[in-house]
Amino acid sequence: MSGRLTVIGLGPGDARWLTAEAHAALATAEAIYGYGAYLDRVPVLPGQMRHPSDNRDEQARGAAALGHAANGAHVAVVSGGDPGVFAMAAAVCAEIEAGPPAWRELNVAIVPGITAMLAVAARVGAPLGHDFCALSLSDNLKPWELIEHRLKAAASAGFVIAIYNPVSRARPWQLGAAFDCVGRLLSGSTPVIFGRAIGRMGEHVEVTTLGAAKSSAADMATLVIVGSADTRIVAREGRAPLVYTPRAAAMVHA
Amino acid sequence: MSGRLTVIGLGPGDARWLTAEAHAALATAEAIYGYGAYLDRVPVLPGQMRHPSDNRDEQARGAAALGHAANGAHVAVVSGGDPGVFAMAAAVCAEIEAGPPAWRELNVAIVPGITAMLAVAARVGAPLGHDFCALSLSDNLKPWELIEHRLKAAASAGFVIAIYNPVSRARPWQLGAAFDCVGRLLSGSTPVIFGRAIGRMGEHVEVTTLGAAKSSAADMATLVIVGSADTRIVAREGRAPLVYTPRAAAMVHA
Repeated sequence: MSGRLTVIGLGPGDARWLTAEAHAALATAEAIYGYGAYLDRVPVLPGQMRHPSDNRDEQARGAAALGHAANGAHVAVVSGGDPGVFAMAAAVCAEIEAGPPAWRELNVAIVPGITAMLAVAARVGAPLGHDFCALSLSDNLKPWELIEHRLKAAASAGFVIAIYNPVSRARPWQLGAAFDCVGRLLSGSTPVIFGRAIGRMGEHVEVTTLGAAKSSAADMATLVIVGSADTRIVAREGRAPLVYTPRAAAMVHA
Repeated sequence: MSGRLTVIGLGPGDARWLTAEAHAALATAEAIYGYGAYLDRVPVLPGQMRHPSDNRDEQARGAAALGHAANGAHVAVVSGGDPGVFAMAAAVCAEIEAGPPAWRELNVAIVPGITAMLAVAARVGAPLGHDFCALSLSDNLKPWELIEHRLKAAASAGFVIAIYNPVSRARPWQLGAAFDCVGRLLSGSTPVIFGRAIGRMGEHVEVTTLGAAKSSAADMATLVIVGSADTRIVAREGRAPLVYTPRAAAMVHA
């Protein structure tokens, strides 16, 4: 079987954050599948087929790409950020597990990318400089009770928390509930960062505190980082503050 | 003040994983500071000064680079992987906070990179496809008691765990103790991945289970991923297995 499927991370923003490997993989694919807004970031090549789909069709998109590759083509699936973090790589693996035996014979490769939390962290300093976790706030695919359980576990153990998918039109209250949840365990002075559309049109970064954070500051394009008791804000005259979590930690504070 | 400090992520391996932004930042720096092995990955440019230092001198290296930049130069500090994850960005921020006021006036930028866990995950599928945490196992900068507390919190809440700095010559027993610790909370069939020197000479990937994992399989160049109760191994005839964590989760299993 000569078919090949490559799942490619585009990074969170413009072409600056593409790796050389991602560039090369995009250039050799015969067909590219992806959410329309991600496909729009990829330069059009003559003869290369493009299959845009809706944002919420991950499993169907993965299956379509696998079926195409199983016909002997070199197919790419593009993902914003890193394909392995709340993105297409898991959807493709799940389709391979559930699909026809031929899909397990395919040459499948994942090309890593800069995931949103790394780009947001880089904009403000080093809030992920020590132990941290990444958590999706979407309760479409898991119960809210489990999300609260994980938020509590992470906050009380002193992990910095990167929150993916903080809000959507159908999920308006979850981020406020998450702030309330960790606010019972962390001081109101704990740094909070809102990073919106980093590296893209409309980029906006806000550094605030848990006591002052408003969930209305986030939209679907926002990644939120909630610090730990160790995370510090360094004020700088005439410059944006730096936010970082020191490499050393003393004890659990919560 | 015209001085500038850029902290640049080189990614975990060879030049394939450099971003375009990192390439450009390396090309314009007048001087580059870094651990010798990372500096060796950066092509030499005429007129560009190079300041290699020992692996464990992060704070001193940050201070030296800041002092140099405060003299008006454009200085770069290189970091393996992403500079914001257990690396140089936090050291630089800490030096800025503790250093002379002039250092707060500097133009400081962080260039994100592919961090090791993303590269290891990409090699095997999508083990970080749902909620996960990243934890350094080094007890040089925090007490072992805190590390165990965080391991337990993460494992019982169902986070996949990426373990950085699993072992060193001075820290030979910690990874075995970590496996014992999470082994009391997770089934012996939980997938474990050892990813060594990913993207470099001597790359080696091993997929095993918590019941069979031997801490001797890891060295200083290894990143270890311990799955959650949801993480799955997909066997493939004639190919390495895929490991992934589904995008949906039911409840806490532990």
